Amino acid sequence: MALRVGVIGGGQLARMMIAPAVEIGIDLRVLAEEEGMSAQLAATAVGDYRDLDAVRAFVRDVDVVTFDHEHVPQDVLRALVADGVAVHPGPDALQFAQDKLVMRARLAELGIPQPDWAAVRDADELRAFLDAHGGRGVVKTPRGGYDGKGVRVVRAGSEADDWFATLGDGEALLVEELVSFVRELAQQVARRPGGEVVAYPVVETVQRDGVCAEVLAPAPGAPQRLAQMAEGIGRTIAEGLGVTGMLAVELFETDDERILVNELAMRPHNSGHWTQDGAVTSQFEQHLRAVADLPLGDTSPRAPWSVMVNILGGPAEGTLEDRFSAAMSDQPAAKIHTYGKAPRPGRKVGHVNVAGDDLDDAVYIARAAAAHFA
Amino acid sequence: MALRVGVIGGGQLARMMIAPAVEIGIDLRVLAEEEGMSAQLAATAVGDYRDLDAVRAFVRDVDVVTFDHEHVPQDVLRALVADGVAVHPGPDALQFAQDKLVMRARLAELGIPQPDWAAVRDADELRAFLDAHGGRGVVKTPRGGYDGKGVRVVRAGSEADDWFATLGDGEALLVEELVSFVRELAQQVARRPGGEVVAYPVVETVQRDGVCAEVLAPAPGAPQRLAQMAEGIGRTIAEGLGVTGMLAVELFETDDERILVNELAMRPHNSGHWTQDGAVTSQFEQHLRAVADLPLGDTSPRAPWSVMVNILGGPAEGTLEDRFSAAMSDQPAAKIHTYGKAPRPGRKVGHVNVAGDDLDDAVYIARAAAAHFA
Repeated sequence: MALRVGVIGGGQLARMMIAPAVEIGIDLRVLAEEEGMSAQLAATAVGDYRDLDAVRAFVRDVDVVTFDHEHVPQDVLRALVADGVAVHPGPDALQFAQDKLVMRARLAELGIPQPDWAAVRDADELRAFLDAHGGRGVVKTPRGGYDGKGVRVVRAGSEADDWFATLGDGEALLVEELVSFVRELAQQVARRPGGEVVAYPVVETVQRDGVCAEVLAPAPGAPQRLAQMAEGIGRTIAEGLGVTGMLAVELFETDDERILVNELAMRPHNSGHWTQDGAVTSQFEQHLRAVADLPLGDTSPRAPWSVMVNILGGPAEGTLEDRFSAAMSDQPAAKIHTYGKAPRPGRKVGHVNVAGDDLDDAVYIARAAAAHFA
Repeated sequence: MALRVGVIGGGQLARMMIAPAVEIGIDLRVLAEEEGMSAQLAATAVGDYRDLDAVRAFVRDVDVVTFDHEHVPQDVLRALVADGVAVHPGPDALQFAQDKLVMRARLAELGIPQPDWAAVRDADELRAFLDAHGGRGVVKTPRGGYDGKGVRVVRAGSEADDWFATLGDGEALLVEELVSFVRELAQQVARRPGGEVVAYPVVETVQRDGVCAEVLAPAPGAPQRLAQMAEGIGRTIAEGLGVTGMLAVELFETDDERILVNELAMRPHNSGHWTQDGAVTSQFEQHLRAVADLPLGDTSPRAPWSVMVNILGGPAEGTLEDRFSAAMSDQPAAKIHTYGKAPRPGRKVGHVNVAGDDLDDAVYIARAAAAHFA
């Protein structure tokens, strides 16, 4: 009988696990938040991932549990583990993706290069950090932030008062130095429960308005030393945090050629969508292999260059279908991936991958295809 | 709303349409022969494709109908068309894939090179054909044959008496000259209802016991003249027969450098499985685009060489899952595709694709991965 992998969360990451699950013969089951989610085709249940009873009912018929997102509460995760369920990544690892303060403290223990940071409980503590860091900093809510939400650049201790007001006993905000970076990179690795780790080439990610807009793979012009450093950081974090499945490490490349860890994600990640059409093993297949404890696949690129451009819902006229058709007609070499989501301005509704021998050509084709949706 | 494509038949070809349907945002629906078929994940109905009522009920909620196989009877197909349903390929085209005598007659009209052939109604007519062709020939039942079934090499007029005995009024068997070929090739093209046609590179197919065992893409050592001739044959047949969707033309390459048409298939075909990992647009995505009347995709290879090796159920010990795991571990660059079918000796249960710069390496990796199942 096929191995049953249950995914909690029905978003596009779960959706994009469907294709490799069918290929390698995994029976994918999805606990979706509601009807009509991106991963609808594999949705076998609808329920609240914060409700232990709903999650327990879902996992009863699966062999392994994994995730579309990192929001399942620790008490739910730990109850599943206590029930004897195989959960990958497990709660001990996921806590570092769920709480940025816990992550910063652990990366410091592991000696991983990262921005200066502090836990701050009030405006005075924030001011003291800013005073020591050129009068500027980035304040983050430790939990629940994504795509630029829960992140604020501040220049005064008072600029996070609204967030301080919401803190409970013993809670704090994270403040980090505002890093002077030349670009952002991302390093992905996959790790099996038994310890096998494979690494993808480090990529360049281009953000717009706090959201990933484009990915260039591998990172153009990256010296081998930097690529090796990024891979070492990825491997050290995967092993040090006990990650199982895919790990994405978002990195800053500084103007003095250091790389510093920005964020972590323990699941397939937007920075790895290029692997669907640009690597021998896509991050979605790799994640399934890793959490199912199957041998990991070749991470080699299929082409010298791969480019991913996100499709954000925009004000364009006509239906999404008409625009897909126009994009396909205009750029037959573009691989268009859709998420089955209603387009709203700024919402990620798909992406375009292009792989080829020439980076400029690939960028042109991917942008030209994506432009039909803007 | 996403375009709804209904596939009649729940085998592995329907299964392999699931991944591209999810990617390009098509709502795939499958009428499966029974529960637990290969395409189970997308099966929205179970029923008999020969039963017009069952088929009518299935197609009520789809925009376009296409097929996993060519066995839907003409009267069912024509009733759907009369109902106003978009059927691709349509009955006028499909008849040529359903009846080899009708196909031979039409190809002759189109001036397509093919083996000498005749319709024979009894042993005397067969004997006359054999006498005129060196005493040998290939007898075929015009309908229902596949993977070597319904095909028999004969040296005497009496060797098809059992088949002659089953013929009804006006029916005949097909006899073809036994072609002295150096190898077998396959040419795939896709055609939209509006007429747009794209062609894949011609490939070499290696048969064992009448079943496709391996495919090498593009056909090694094929002179450009031969590749152009194959493409021309594919395009002429697609246009001449009004094919919509994928067309596969199986060809003989003779020792005097001619190519002759052996068989036709109007659907994705085993000779095109390499495109999943070796071409920019897979034959499964291309078929969906064509039948849905979407712009066709780039047919360029992703790598200089691609190799496909079929996985046939064999006597190997252990579960299929254990063998997949061993194959993955042994050959991390092999792309293993599974059909979700119980292994029986000789039954196609999956295939392995490998793409790369070196043909010998790719063949080695693909065979080594597939060998775990033998």
